[in-house]
Amino acid sequence: MTHLHNNPADFVTEYLTGLQLAHPDLVVAKVQDPGPYVTRADHHDGEVALISGGGAGHEPLHAGFVGPGMLHGAVPGPIFTSPPPDPILAAIRAVDTGAGVVLIVKNYTGDVMNFEIAAELAAAEGITCHHVLIADDVAVADSTYTAGRRGVAGTMLVEKIAGAAAARGDDIHAVTQLATHAAQRVFSMGVATQAGSRPGGDETFHLPANAMEMGIGIHGEPGRAQLPIASADAQVEQLVDQIVCELPADANELLVFVNGMGATTSAELYLCYRAAHEQLSARGYTIERSLVGSYVTSLDMHGVQLSVMALDERLRDAWDAPCRTPAYTHVG
Amino acid sequence: MTHLHNNPADFVTEYLTGLQLAHPDLVVAKVQDPGPYVTRADHHDGEVALISGGGAGHEPLHAGFVGPGMLHGAVPGPIFTSPPPDPILAAIRAVDTGAGVVLIVKNYTGDVMNFEIAAELAAAEGITCHHVLIADDVAVADSTYTAGRRGVAGTMLVEKIAGAAAARGDDIHAVTQLATHAAQRVFSMGVATQAGSRPGGDETFHLPANAMEMGIGIHGEPGRAQLPIASADAQVEQLVDQIVCELPADANELLVFVNGMGATTSAELYLCYRAAHEQLSARGYTIERSLVGSYVTSLDMHGVQLSVMALDERLRDAWDAPCRTPAYTHVG
Repeated sequence: MTHLHNNPADFVTEYLTGLQLAHPDLVVAKVQDPGPYVTRADHHDGEVALISGGGAGHEPLHAGFVGPGMLHGAVPGPIFTSPPPDPILAAIRAVDTGAGVVLIVKNYTGDVMNFEIAAELAAAEGITCHHVLIADDVAVADSTYTAGRRGVAGTMLVEKIAGAAAARGDDIHAVTQLATHAAQRVFSMGVATQAGSRPGGDETFHLPANAMEMGIGIHGEPGRAQLPIASADAQVEQLVDQIVCELPADANELLVFVNGMGATTSAELYLCYRAAHEQLSARGYTIERSLVGSYVTSLDMHGVQLSVMALDERLRDAWDAPCRTPAYTHVG
Repeated sequence: MTHLHNNPADFVTEYLTGLQLAHPDLVVAKVQDPGPYVTRADHHDGEVALISGGGAGHEPLHAGFVGPGMLHGAVPGPIFTSPPPDPILAAIRAVDTGAGVVLIVKNYTGDVMNFEIAAELAAAEGITCHHVLIADDVAVADSTYTAGRRGVAGTMLVEKIAGAAAARGDDIHAVTQLATHAAQRVFSMGVATQAGSRPGGDETFHLPANAMEMGIGIHGEPGRAQLPIASADAQVEQLVDQIVCELPADANELLVFVNGMGATTSAELYLCYRAAHEQLSARGYTIERSLVGSYVTSLDMHGVQLSVMALDERLRDAWDAPCRTPAYTHVG
């Protein structure tokens, strides 16, 4: 259970306040009206700015990825609830330096709508906004909150790659093109053995003892099926089986990302990485890059998502570029 | 529950195999006899070598901290069980370059004994070994597995600081002296609202609903008291109250570390950091440095440990030095 909180209504703003206090060199948190939102603490004159956001409960996504080489701003809504247009617009105004703003949005109906409204309002003020939609979850075709596929763990990879393009000075068209290309080449699916819980509240869904939910979403919405818990290797195999069906025909060199859902331990994630690495290698793929950690979560859900990106030279170069954020630092 | 496993007997070696597969540039895992242990993948000729270890179940400690600027080797035992002398001796032989080896050992009876035996065997082969004991937990004077205070989250800070001293070329006396100095200036205490569970097994202890264990250890051993769950701010206040009593008289500039116990979310940890930062600032301390994350865990326990180090110039310089490991990367 999510037990460490004060008034649950203050959960998101107290989290953001702590993030700024711990990383004053990286992030500035605006928790008053029309916030909350987070921007970069450093200057980034002339750089295309990247903003992401969506309902809270998926930390460190997105505010934990604000910093040099990744995002310029993040707009968390209440838990599992899209932020309204006002704080998104305020964040757009705050980060734009004249080069335009790219909005990286997970494919949930509320997020898509509110980010579009904010972008239209910004356009009326002369700020160019582009959109990149993340819909990497291969588990389901549509869902409770989505027309089309959901955006899940692959979002982190797209934010890193787009951030590298912005940091090296690409213009808004090039940043948008590379981010879209990355989003089209990443495929994800997850499984959970225990639901997450809201601060001061109940489980977000119910799983019987010894059951796993295959194809989980990140808001407690249903996946594909409840099944008896299998071994870690067998769980990973189901994810790999589905994901490889989706990989493009030219896929060979892969970025493999094992993502924890919030309460999964580091040892479990590396144990699952071992299974994913061996199974994908056995199918003839080359694992060029990897990432293991809890980066896109669903409160304190216990489970794992596997994301696989089919790399090419442009994507690999952008992945390898340095970045420094509260949740992910890479030495290029 | 810790659900992601295959045969529980293979949990540690499968974790280590995944760690090497994900980070082949950083770590080499030896999982055959007399292993398991982990060493650095890079060369470190002439450098004093640092080894830590102890029972598994606290990941990413210690194997996740092997890499340039931190440890040279790590020796995990079975879960919550000290490694025997053989793999410790094998790791000492593997990492020594002639400059000697410093063993960083948490104060648990089994660990202290087995690392001492291994050091004596190494000395008989001409390898100089020094010991640094970590006993930072101010919750209890003695415990189930300890004569004297337990070693907990402060261990990570000492490993980072000692690693900086070794990387810059300090000799074994200087590395040992700085690590001991760091260990004497760090004080920790924790609280949990849910026990961890072994792979394929039960909870490591039982907490009734709506109860918290104040002063937890990291092996399910009892703390100070079971109390009704308090707000996050009130939980942190109890930790701060005890820790400030222990700080040395010259303490002013602090390194504040909020450590998750395994299943605690990033948002909860930053929310607790906010409380710790504000409460320590209100008592007149200056928060010079911070660290927030799940670095020293107890399987999938839900809770938080607060560690506070009283900095001085030498400790701050070593903390600020660059390092690159699977679990912690710092750009100096």
